[in-house]
Amino acid sequence: MARRPVDVPALVDRVGGGDRRAIARAITLVENRDPAAAELVRALYPRTGGAAVAGFTGPPGVGKSSLMAGLVQLLREREQRVGVVTVDPSSPFSQGALLGDRIRLADHFLDPGVFIRSMSTRGHLGGVAEATLQALLVLDAAGMDVLLLETVGVGQSEVEVASVADTVVLVLMPGSGDSIQALKAGVMEIPDVIVINKCDHPATRTMRTDIRSILALDRERRWKVPIVETEALRGHGLNELWQAVLDHRAFLEGDGGLDRRRRQNLTNEVVGLAVAQLRRRLQDAVEDDPELQGLLDEVHAREVDPLTATERVTRRVLGGEPG
Amino acid sequence: MARRPVDVPALVDRVGGGDRRAIARAITLVENRDPAAAELVRALYPRTGGAAVAGFTGPPGVGKSSLMAGLVQLLREREQRVGVVTVDPSSPFSQGALLGDRIRLADHFLDPGVFIRSMSTRGHLGGVAEATLQALLVLDAAGMDVLLLETVGVGQSEVEVASVADTVVLVLMPGSGDSIQALKAGVMEIPDVIVINKCDHPATRTMRTDIRSILALDRERRWKVPIVETEALRGHGLNELWQAVLDHRAFLEGDGGLDRRRRQNLTNEVVGLAVAQLRRRLQDAVEDDPELQGLLDEVHAREVDPLTATERVTRRVLGGEPG
Repeated sequence: MARRPVDVPALVDRVGGGDRRAIARAITLVENRDPAAAELVRALYPRTGGAAVAGFTGPPGVGKSSLMAGLVQLLREREQRVGVVTVDPSSPFSQGALLGDRIRLADHFLDPGVFIRSMSTRGHLGGVAEATLQALLVLDAAGMDVLLLETVGVGQSEVEVASVADTVVLVLMPGSGDSIQALKAGVMEIPDVIVINKCDHPATRTMRTDIRSILALDRERRWKVPIVETEALRGHGLNELWQAVLDHRAFLEGDGGLDRRRRQNLTNEVVGLAVAQLRRRLQDAVEDDPELQGLLDEVHAREVDPLTATERVTRRVLGGEPG
Repeated sequence: MARRPVDVPALVDRVGGGDRRAIARAITLVENRDPAAAELVRALYPRTGGAAVAGFTGPPGVGKSSLMAGLVQLLREREQRVGVVTVDPSSPFSQGALLGDRIRLADHFLDPGVFIRSMSTRGHLGGVAEATLQALLVLDAAGMDVLLLETVGVGQSEVEVASVADTVVLVLMPGSGDSIQALKAGVMEIPDVIVINKCDHPATRTMRTDIRSILALDRERRWKVPIVETEALRGHGLNELWQAVLDHRAFLEGDGGLDRRRRQNLTNEVVGLAVAQLRRRLQDAVEDDPELQGLLDEVHAREVDPLTATERVTRRVLGGEPG
């Protein structure tokens, strides 16, 4: 496939000016892991840090996309420029289920103050996380005031995507029993804001009580996690939700915590990116390298144990002494 | 702390003979990442491969531990020796919730044909996965006929622990709406067997219908995933559940698939262990190395971009050329 060569400085200028086609091109470059992407990110990075980043996570089907469509509208009414990145769990049979939400989000596709991009999770999960982080940097450099990131909170990718956000919002709905249990057991981290969407359901009150009692166990947390009830399809509760996000941000800023959090998020990102790259190299090697294939056959035949094999794979792929 | 020196050959013999204290000691060594652990695993590995491994996963609170306690009893009645490894999502406030199940499992603590070990997830998740895999090898080498592995199916550790099993059983209960949605959206992998526990609940029938319709979408799968209803506390459905596990294993064996699956599981394990070790080295380095701390400060100050920082961290920790 013939490609246009990338004029990175020109692209950086156009992204910085908020040019939508340039933004789209830049995100495609990072998504395709184009050789020019690293140079691009390097050049854009000093222009970033201005946007407030809110991450929305939660199980599929709770209405995250509708909620974000509603928030985009609310933010546009307040004359905020909004970038939206959704990590789409594209599966052979999920397209239909998501289509309704995607259409609602598409209401905003023609608005020049809104940029929406869906990152596909086909292929390496580590790769998606990498591309998603870079897409957020592109939108930040493009002068967006607010970035909304949507991820599905089931399973974890190499880089815990939602953790790049200043504020993490967990979206649940009546029926999200598994998530409630996961919060209770401490296997799911307590977010900054909890939303109960589809709150016209009679089980909402019980759910609020359950969440309250879980949160009450964690007395050390200085930020009191608000529980907001929304009905995204009717636009109910969106003001309260956004206010909760703003309150959390104000709390972080008052406390000096925003800086600490961003420093920690960056550290996690850097380690996560490094691990994702290393995993890709190891994975490619065990799939392609006949010597490693032979080694794995020996493990399978119980001639070499898995720990010795792990050392050998690491040494062969990365060189030097394994740790 | 003074430690007894480890006589690995003697320990290997005693583990091979099924000595409970030796098994306990061996698992403690792998859990503590003792220097002798690698030698031990190496020596035990040729004796492994005989046990059938069934992995049980699912959200917290669905009754996995009760189910496993029931299966242990059933397998003991059939004169099978059983090893149980549970990965315990130890959280400051989850102990109480889990205690009931743990006590039931403890009914078997005095039975010499049963060995039960709970691995704590405190500290590195990657480390738990590593230790869990090795604990299974110890129990396999000790001559257990069946190994039951219990993990919490929310979030993923570095090594997807359940994937070491010959048969993966997903345990749900009425109210597990999030997991149903995750299966539907394709973000949770289809297991080999699905259990609806606490099936005396009126919502069980709807749940079964929902699961059936999700499974029906995947026409290419040759193994027809059975849905088993259980009521673990009363012992209902345990025979059917174990029969489903045996049927799946017979299917794999008939098909030559058991060998392929174990070869693939071993590859995943080796890559997973390598990644876990690398992650630990990177994590330790960014926490301890003043030069890397300085680098991350520069990233935070937008003087160095995250991709460049990732390259530098990788090169400093692992040496050589980053990929």
